[in-house]
Amino acid sequence: MPITVSIKTTARIDMVDITHLVRREVEKAGLKEGLCVVYVPHTTSGVTINEGADPAVISDILQKLKQLVPPHDGYRHAEGNSDSHIKASIMGSSVTVLVEGGRPVMGTWQKIFYCEFDGPRSRKFFVKPISC
Amino acid sequence: MPITVSIKTTARIDMVDITHLVRREVEKAGLKEGLCVVYVPHTTSGVTINEGADPAVISDILQKLKQLVPPHDGYRHAEGNSDSHIKASIMGSSVTVLVEGGRPVMGTWQKIFYCEFDGPRSRKFFVKPISC
Amino acid sequence: MPITVSIKTTARIDMVDITHLVRREVEKAGLKEGLCVVYVPHTTSGVTINEGADPAVISDILQKLKQLVPPHDGYRHAEGNSDSHIKASIMGSSVTVLVEGGRPVMGTWQKIFYCEFDGPRSRKFFVKPISC
Repeated sequence: MPITVSIKTTARIDMVDITHLVRREVEKAGLKEGLCVVYVPHTTSGVTINEGADPAVISDILQKLKQLVPPHDGYRHAEGNSDSHIKASIMGSSVTVLVEGGRPVMGTWQKIFYCEFDGPRSRKFFVKPISC
Repeated sequence: MPITVSIKTTARIDMVDITHLVRREVEKAGLKEGLCVVYVPHTTSGVTINEGADPAVISDILQKLKQLVPPHDGYRHAEGNSDSHIKASIMGSSVTVLVEGGRPVMGTWQKIFYCEFDGPRSRKFFVKPISC
Repeated sequence: MPITVSIKTTARIDMVDITHLVRREVEKAGLKEGLCVVYVPHTTSGVTINEGADPAVISDILQKLKQLVPPHDGYRHAEGNSDSHIKASIMGSSVTVLVEGGRPVMGTWQKIFYCEFDGPRSRKFFVKPISC
């Protein structure tokens, strides 16, 4: 099994900062230089990198996604969470960050966010450190 | 040339499950542990990972993309397929999956979908297994 | 530090073809076969692969993003650029291309575009060549 990290989300749509968890796994793996892939194995979830300084940015992203892809919109899927699947594909199922000096090299304001669109849920994601 | 796989799409906008084709190439390459990148070299196509159990999910994704980015919407591009290019960038040109024990490690409900937005077409995609 | 390339964008929302810059770094690194990751460390920027032959395609992509995510739309983030952050997450923070024979292997019409959504700005991006 790949390195697996568990988190909890707390609302139907939610973005959780997982940067410190990814950094911790990079350090535990002893990766000095290379890449790190963060992969989400759930189909109503995605992962994205965006601003982590002002929580209003995340709230604006979620609000816009809700407006573009509302929960009820004549969908055919009987489980009632088609909007969650659509939002997941818009965000994407993985991100790749570079690693140098034993740490992810990200922009000053960047954080990695786990995005759940059909929560609240207990979820997991995979971290794959790659030496290169 | 990278490993190249051919497929056919059957409608103007279509999502084709290519999971078994990716898995087959991972097995043929003898990759035991690492990553696999799936890359789409066409500009009206993308690739995404989402639910494969109920085909209504895919139909809802396509319907929402059609609603957000309709085929005719005052576009400037003279070929008449600007909507296809826009949808392609929303989905993305590649996905990365982790490989363990000789197989892609994906969620229970996850499948990899080739997304064509200006078909039907004969298309190809690249598979790059990476040992690490 | 990873390989870092500087560019300038010239409008509030802008997509700049960086394909030749990525190719140059792949050549300078002497990478013959593998992958190349292009990573954007700014939170109002993204990166995407799309058609580079007719500039109208890019203009249509930008116009549609502006329509779906307008600059002013009741956002909470006080800096006034929430739309830029949202567009960045829709496009994504990195792309991965395959490399064979010392060059990125892309489709005939594909180009890599740096997307800035809160410019004009002097920006940078990272290039990570991976031998495999």
